[in-house]
Amino acid sequence: MSELSVNHLLGIKYITEADIQLIFETADHFKEVINRPIKKVPSLRDITIANLFFENSTRTRLSFELAEKRLSADVVNFSAASSSVKKGETLVDTVNNILSMKVDMVVMRHPNPGAGVFLSKHINASIVNAGDGAHEHPTQALLDSYSIRERLGDVAGKNVVIVGDILHSRVALSNIFALQKLGANVKVCGPKTLMPKYIEKLGVTFEPNLVNALNWCDVANMLRVQNERMDISYFPSTREYTQQFGVNKKILASLDKEIVLMHPGPINRGVEITSDVADSKQAIILDQVENGVAVRMAVLYLLASKIKQYEN
Amino acid sequence: MSELSVNHLLGIKYITEADIQLIFETADHFKEVINRPIKKVPSLRDITIANLFFENSTRTRLSFELAEKRLSADVVNFSAASSSVKKGETLVDTVNNILSMKVDMVVMRHPNPGAGVFLSKHINASIVNAGDGAHEHPTQALLDSYSIRERLGDVAGKNVVIVGDILHSRVALSNIFALQKLGANVKVCGPKTLMPKYIEKLGVTFEPNLVNALNWCDVANMLRVQNERMDISYFPSTREYTQQFGVNKKILASLDKEIVLMHPGPINRGVEITSDVADSKQAIILDQVENGVAVRMAVLYLLASKIKQYEN
Amino acid sequence: MSELSVNHLLGIKYITEADIQLIFETADHFKEVINRPIKKVPSLRDITIANLFFENSTRTRLSFELAEKRLSADVVNFSAASSSVKKGETLVDTVNNILSMKVDMVVMRHPNPGAGVFLSKHINASIVNAGDGAHEHPTQALLDSYSIRERLGDVAGKNVVIVGDILHSRVALSNIFALQKLGANVKVCGPKTLMPKYIEKLGVTFEPNLVNALNWCDVANMLRVQNERMDISYFPSTREYTQQFGVNKKILASLDKEIVLMHPGPINRGVEITSDVADSKQAIILDQVENGVAVRMAVLYLLASKIKQYEN
Repeated sequence: MSELSVNHLLGIKYITEADIQLIFETADHFKEVINRPIKKVPSLRDITIANLFFENSTRTRLSFELAEKRLSADVVNFSAASSSVKKGETLVDTVNNILSMKVDMVVMRHPNPGAGVFLSKHINASIVNAGDGAHEHPTQALLDSYSIRERLGDVAGKNVVIVGDILHSRVALSNIFALQKLGANVKVCGPKTLMPKYIEKLGVTFEPNLVNALNWCDVANMLRVQNERMDISYFPSTREYTQQFGVNKKILASLDKEIVLMHPGPINRGVEITSDVADSKQAIILDQVENGVAVRMAVLYLLASKIKQYEN
Repeated sequence: MSELSVNHLLGIKYITEADIQLIFETADHFKEVINRPIKKVPSLRDITIANLFFENSTRTRLSFELAEKRLSADVVNFSAASSSVKKGETLVDTVNNILSMKVDMVVMRHPNPGAGVFLSKHINASIVNAGDGAHEHPTQALLDSYSIRERLGDVAGKNVVIVGDILHSRVALSNIFALQKLGANVKVCGPKTLMPKYIEKLGVTFEPNLVNALNWCDVANMLRVQNERMDISYFPSTREYTQQFGVNKKILASLDKEIVLMHPGPINRGVEITSDVADSKQAIILDQVENGVAVRMAVLYLLASKIKQYEN
Repeated sequence: MSELSVNHLLGIKYITEADIQLIFETADHFKEVINRPIKKVPSLRDITIANLFFENSTRTRLSFELAEKRLSADVVNFSAASSSVKKGETLVDTVNNILSMKVDMVVMRHPNPGAGVFLSKHINASIVNAGDGAHEHPTQALLDSYSIRERLGDVAGKNVVIVGDILHSRVALSNIFALQKLGANVKVCGPKTLMPKYIEKLGVTFEPNLVNALNWCDVANMLRVQNERMDISYFPSTREYTQQFGVNKKILASLDKEIVLMHPGPINRGVEITSDVADSKQAIILDQVENGVAVRMAVLYLLASKIKQYEN
């Protein structure tokens, strides 16, 4: 049987196309499972998983927790708010303590880019990066590409534009890596002040005009506008942003084809996307959420297989 | 087999007397279960329930969580403190996201009256209202009437007075609906400024004098004084409240019969009820808590039966 | 079969040496269990445990939660932040409410010394004290002595020094009781202002000089410096503390034997202990954490046996 080339999922940068395809095939199976009346399998009943969230999160934490419970894993949750982190303990000490309690896998969200990579060099458990600062959010990118594959049959050869604040987005960076490994063509669109300098080195084209970008693409992934950042000088106002980069029915009707619309959520209705578009059949936003559970089950299952193999 | 007339429990207003009786008969069975050494049944092992608490709660959340776990459901918890709600997401989007993760039932507490009713028109899962603003708290009213039935054999024909701040109380409103549907006679007692104008339209009599109210009733349900509201002008001071509407041993001894005392908790000992009364055999306060788990198991079980029926 | 002499674990003061030995022998079994691929046993599948944390805690709560889940107990968590305690409810009322929901055991951390003892006189469930103010933290002392026994074969006859703020430490007090019951010799070391007056009445010697203390001992238990207290007048500055009572490689090399080093965590690296010492083979800090789960499983298992015996 096939297996992953890695012992951790730290970022899409560190995995191969074959890894992604294996995750997708495994997720196909789990998607069937979670659509059955009994949505649970006993696969990970011998695995303990700690969800370590050093940043607040609702949907990602819930999605992982449901994935873990449907695999019958034992789950413990840890959030920064009530943690020893406040008492000045180092990240390695905190995690080593949790691992000494015989935890097999760690799902971690952390504000520092590279926290997962750093940790993987110091501890023995399998680590899944659930978002590390502006660096990567690999399971989001996997569920995004999985949802494109589901809707359009394949990711290879498709034109995908990512719209919004690319500079501060871990979702954007992980998506770029995943889409390129799977053979898609990628453009980015949004305010020029929110484009990272390295974007062209990644083989990604910057398209400043939204209509041009939408006319080119098969899929548009609309990033969330971080309202909390809108007071910073190089950000446009929300109103300016919506005028230039918001998608509405009128723009979509002006295109000569029907494109697919994605959004990682939570949506600011009327800002990056209007309500009628978000709720239309062109949008696969809720499919993304559903696929998130299946993809995360696949990632956890495949990483756990490697742990068990090592133990035997 | 009998079934509920509704797919959600949004309020007592929306269910029939037959629904209530079916819930009570089912709760009788679960009350036996939770008094056995093994307090668990496998009934809902194929059901995932999300507890969405947009307001803080201890006892209601714990009671639901225990009910769910004893039915073997898979449970995920969500609280507003760490939620996307803060990021400006709409309620429907938040809940639809959670449902896309294949959640079958939602137990929701929300500060807005009607939040559950609104939601039920927009989503596909079964909803249990665990308190929506000053509107309804249906499982509290069910456990209250169930506890009266348990102590006195029947609710029909009994005289029940609800004492306290009726105006701001979802417990009072749900109790009035439940008691009337079950054939009890209902009066309310408390400061005139805390009586809603619509109370007489509901067929409920206002009795301003506590001793008269207690002499009339078989059961007195003492609502909690919300100390946090006592600085508002139309509220009496806590001391004034206790003098006029607090129950103590002396008052009870002056009655020509032994009435039953209820309280939804948490108790302010010495304010709405003295400690010796709260701990006496006349008070069924802890029975209410115990019955809460059985009644909630019944509600969840009966709603889940309807989901399964629909699926097959 | 042997059983505990108590129905609660309120403090080491209240249990016998035989109780401790029984807990250790039971923990030996569970330590094997948690090192197997399948770390779970069905022993407590008929038991519901409530973790009531009226003070923040990470590692203790996680350790108990993992212990409970590996015994297959049903677990509900309650933290003060979202509790009725804020609404002025008494501790007995809060806990009685939770127990009315048919909870069999309570694991409680509370800021007030004696909270567990007080509660045990008013409620019917089995109570495990997970730390009550500056009073006791019995499971920490049990895992500490268990770790000494594991490393050195036995606790009896060993010389153990506890270094740090003895005055405010529940860990210190519980350790003194446990070590003495098991036949160890105990000294304390640290700033004189942080030594309680009753220390010599307990049969414990105060040694003001760290090097003397280390030369005498087989084991040094280095308490955590509470940085948050360092602004109080009778505390030394962190820098002064480290100079006088911090352990480093140089001091250890100057001793004529190799001592064992313990720390209850979280460590302030470079304050009470340097990083190279904390990570050396002399330190058994992570063994303590691992043993914590096994010891807590043993305590919960033995107390649950008494509940079941009573029921039958």
